[in-house]
Amino acid sequence: MTQLFLGADVGGSSTRVAVASLDDGVIRVAAAGPGNPNVVGPDGSAEVLRATADRALAGVAGTVVAAVLGLAGSSRIATDPAYLAAALPDRVSGPRVVVSDLAVAFSSATPAWAGCTLVAGTGAVAARLDGDELQDRRDGWGWLLGDAGSGYWLGQAAVRSTLRALDEGSLLSGLHGDVLADAGATDYASLLRECYAHPPTWLARFAPLVSRWADDDPQAGDIADEAAALLAATLTGLAPRVDEPVVLAGSVLAQAAGREPGPVGRRLVALLPPGLTLLQGGPGLVGATWIAARRLGQAGPELHRRLCGTMVSAVRG
Amino acid sequence: MTQLFLGADVGGSSTRVAVASLDDGVIRVAAAGPGNPNVVGPDGSAEVLRATADRALAGVAGTVVAAVLGLAGSSRIATDPAYLAAALPDRVSGPRVVVSDLAVAFSSATPAWAGCTLVAGTGAVAARLDGDELQDRRDGWGWLLGDAGSGYWLGQAAVRSTLRALDEGSLLSGLHGDVLADAGATDYASLLRECYAHPPTWLARFAPLVSRWADDDPQAGDIADEAAALLAATLTGLAPRVDEPVVLAGSVLAQAAGREPGPVGRRLVALLPPGLTLLQGGPGLVGATWIAARRLGQAGPELHRRLCGTMVSAVRG
Repeated sequence: MTQLFLGADVGGSSTRVAVASLDDGVIRVAAAGPGNPNVVGPDGSAEVLRATADRALAGVAGTVVAAVLGLAGSSRIATDPAYLAAALPDRVSGPRVVVSDLAVAFSSATPAWAGCTLVAGTGAVAARLDGDELQDRRDGWGWLLGDAGSGYWLGQAAVRSTLRALDEGSLLSGLHGDVLADAGATDYASLLRECYAHPPTWLARFAPLVSRWADDDPQAGDIADEAAALLAATLTGLAPRVDEPVVLAGSVLAQAAGREPGPVGRRLVALLPPGLTLLQGGPGLVGATWIAARRLGQAGPELHRRLCGTMVSAVRG
Repeated sequence: MTQLFLGADVGGSSTRVAVASLDDGVIRVAAAGPGNPNVVGPDGSAEVLRATADRALAGVAGTVVAAVLGLAGSSRIATDPAYLAAALPDRVSGPRVVVSDLAVAFSSATPAWAGCTLVAGTGAVAARLDGDELQDRRDGWGWLLGDAGSGYWLGQAAVRSTLRALDEGSLLSGLHGDVLADAGATDYASLLRECYAHPPTWLARFAPLVSRWADDDPQAGDIADEAAALLAATLTGLAPRVDEPVVLAGSVLAQAAGREPGPVGRRLVALLPPGLTLLQGGPGLVGATWIAARRLGQAGPELHRRLCGTMVSAVRG
């Protein structure tokens, strides 16, 4: 029987499950909507996960010898056997483990055992990983208290810059015009009204406008500079060493399409201490399936390369 | 018949109504709970206001020749005759006017026709007044987008400073210890949980801790310095002139008890351009009744002094 590994990347807005084997790498991927217990509750989460895992496994012959769920947030659910029993198909015969989404982000880009990662999406957080254990963390305090330099932070800064220009009656820059258009607002009052009419993290919708204008509009450039400085401080708070990889992940750091660093990512890299081994984050499912294999002692650099190489075709297939 | 003026200070958490006359100054004050239409709705607001005004007027002989309601926020209700008819007793025979709470704050401290005010309570906003008209404004964008240096901002900064110390495992300062105790939290996770369990402006509860520690804890001192710099920028954005009064109002700028500037207020004053005539804000009801009298062309510096002088005894009586 082929030994199969199950990896899940469980986010606030989407759930993805991959099935992989040592010889074939990623065999099949299935996706669904929100599956994080903090968003849809433990029962809803288990239901979404099991259905998605069943779809990923359908027609794939073999024994599932390990399953890893990557979950955002410090969830008490991680140690609840009832949740894991409900969330994973009965076909899983080996270890069932919940790990931090930060461990998944780190292992998405490297087979290394230990190192650091900085994830800047809607939120922002840096972590030091040892195996798949979270050893240390900086920021990740959420939109109300932290996430400095995140998509939420960038969007908020873009709106603030626009409000300031409107207050002062100064010329609106390219960024300001796009913020107003994207919000469907025409003036100070309607922009303010739109922002308060939505949940706070709605502001993250304006983050791509900062990246788009960063090299052409000084207002956007200043915001990108400040975000990069804040993210650099978050990461360097962990004192990353030159002998360990540092994985940079999340939509804020990447280009809109592709894995090259975007305007904020490029600024960040320029601010980091020299000599660090910086890696751009890959698909979370690579990290999750890799950790599953490593939990059984069956992971090596070759498997990591195979998981990365087969991931794209599995998603397209 | 004695000519009476009615003034109301309508806030998100309390409603106050004063009755005054030219000869006696403030005659009686009545108070109630929240009365702002943005908080309790237009009908609820009118109901609270009328009941409170009725209590203030009970047993006071005379004709109410003008009534002024000071309301926070840019309210469309200001021009709705139905609201004003419902919110004010039938005894009001003269003009019924809604003005900005910023006009009320400005006129609480000075009989001057024009000038600037900076109000820093839970929120923060600066305004230029001409008569009781708002000519210009800076910030006042609310907790999600602005209110830089406000009570919300101070409380948020105090929690952030505490989270940073907990992340880094550094020694907790006096401010940090008080933040944890006041939140009923013992560690990083419980502090974060408490903050997200309440509405965002709950964070303003920690602002007084910054003032309390500002001169003894460098962590708190740095926060107070930054708040003062932000508030100074908000005010100087209006380019206040040396020939007009500048009124500093709100709980963040005052001492816990009294009208002297507190730690943030003292730092602010040190940062402002020299030569400005700075006045500490007084009771909002002085401003509201003063504007009512001025609307009838019956206001002079002597009446303003009388309103200030009689306000305290009217509240105690």
